[in-house]
Amino acid sequence: MATAPVKVFGPPLSTAVSRVLVCLLEKDVPFQLVPISMAKESRAICRYIAEKYANKGTTGLYGTNPLVKASIDQWLEAESQSFNPPSSILTFQLVFAPRMKLKQDEALIKQNEAKLVKVLDVYENRLGSSRYLAGDEFTMADLSHLPNTQFLVEKTDRAELFTSRKNVGRWWTEISTRPSWKKVVEMQNV
Amino acid sequence: MATAPVKVFGPPLSTAVSRVLVCLLEKDVPFQLVPISMAKESRAICRYIAEKYANKGTTGLYGTNPLVKASIDQWLEAESQSFNPPSSILTFQLVFAPRMKLKQDEALIKQNEAKLVKVLDVYENRLGSSRYLAGDEFTMADLSHLPNTQFLVEKTDRAELFTSRKNVGRWWTEISTRPSWKKVVEMQNV
Repeated sequence: MATAPVKVFGPPLSTAVSRVLVCLLEKDVPFQLVPISMAKESRAICRYIAEKYANKGTTGLYGTNPLVKASIDQWLEAESQSFNPPSSILTFQLVFAPRMKLKQDEALIKQNEAKLVKVLDVYENRLGSSRYLAGDEFTMADLSHLPNTQFLVEKTDRAELFTSRKNVGRWWTEISTRPSWKKVVEMQNV
Repeated sequence: MATAPVKVFGPPLSTAVSRVLVCLLEKDVPFQLVPISMAKESRAICRYIAEKYANKGTTGLYGTNPLVKASIDQWLEAESQSFNPPSSILTFQLVFAPRMKLKQDEALIKQNEAKLVKVLDVYENRLGSSRYLAGDEFTMADLSHLPNTQFLVEKTDRAELFTSRKNVGRWWTEISTRPSWKKVVEMQNV
């Protein structure tokens, strides 16, 4: 009977992944490489969880009808394509570079802060006419903004990018005080 | 019937991991966080593969008797504690920092090159009396050095740290031309 090949998730350029691959090859173990990006994968995992457990917990997390789902997808796309690139660069430069004793790149910081300002202007407008990004309910679209925004608001001096904007500030207070996120922040601080 | 909780592997400070955690909490899905470091985990996975498939492929990969196993463990420890820290910092600074448009830290490079030189002096001595690190056979101890050394030899101007040392150079040629590693390098270059 043929057994399913071992699946290896990750980019083969990662030293950790390539170490496992060469080991499997040495042991002549069939495998399938799934060259995912961890960051993108996390959104796919969230979608999978929300659909698999549609009737548990926050039931509207990934929408309950196709129209709302389309709106959630649109704002998830905005998060991954427009919000995430500048905010993850700023998080890396402002939070992790100092911890890793890397020099900060002032030009890169300035450039990405300008990009984030433009994105947040669009959000400010949207959140003036809608309580949450995809509509009246908290959804995956809002949830996906939590990790980077938490770093920018709590671990840098750029909090006011969010808090100085009336609607974005109100939205951030609402989403960041949900018991689920407060629990994750607690886990991060252990 | 109680179902096993979902296991989440990874550091909760990772934005990808925290995104998945908050999603599970919102959906009220029980989970267990396994806060692993990816880099360390890769060695544990290799050990697991080598023991699970002991009789397949390169059978001596994790030793066939307790004495050899102890020697492999000792050199795996040297790789993870002494070789990996300076070589992964050099890989990051010399290969990835330029790609990520981060400024290189010259002082950090100099300091870690000096550390790596000391480690390689010990290796040079060892490999003068032994064909491979743990003895006469290629084992996990050698394998674990492949990922970082590949970057340093092929993607930086520091190749001669390895190639100028008679025994280390001979060892590197032997381990890096194994079909398994050549296959991984091919996968990286796709």
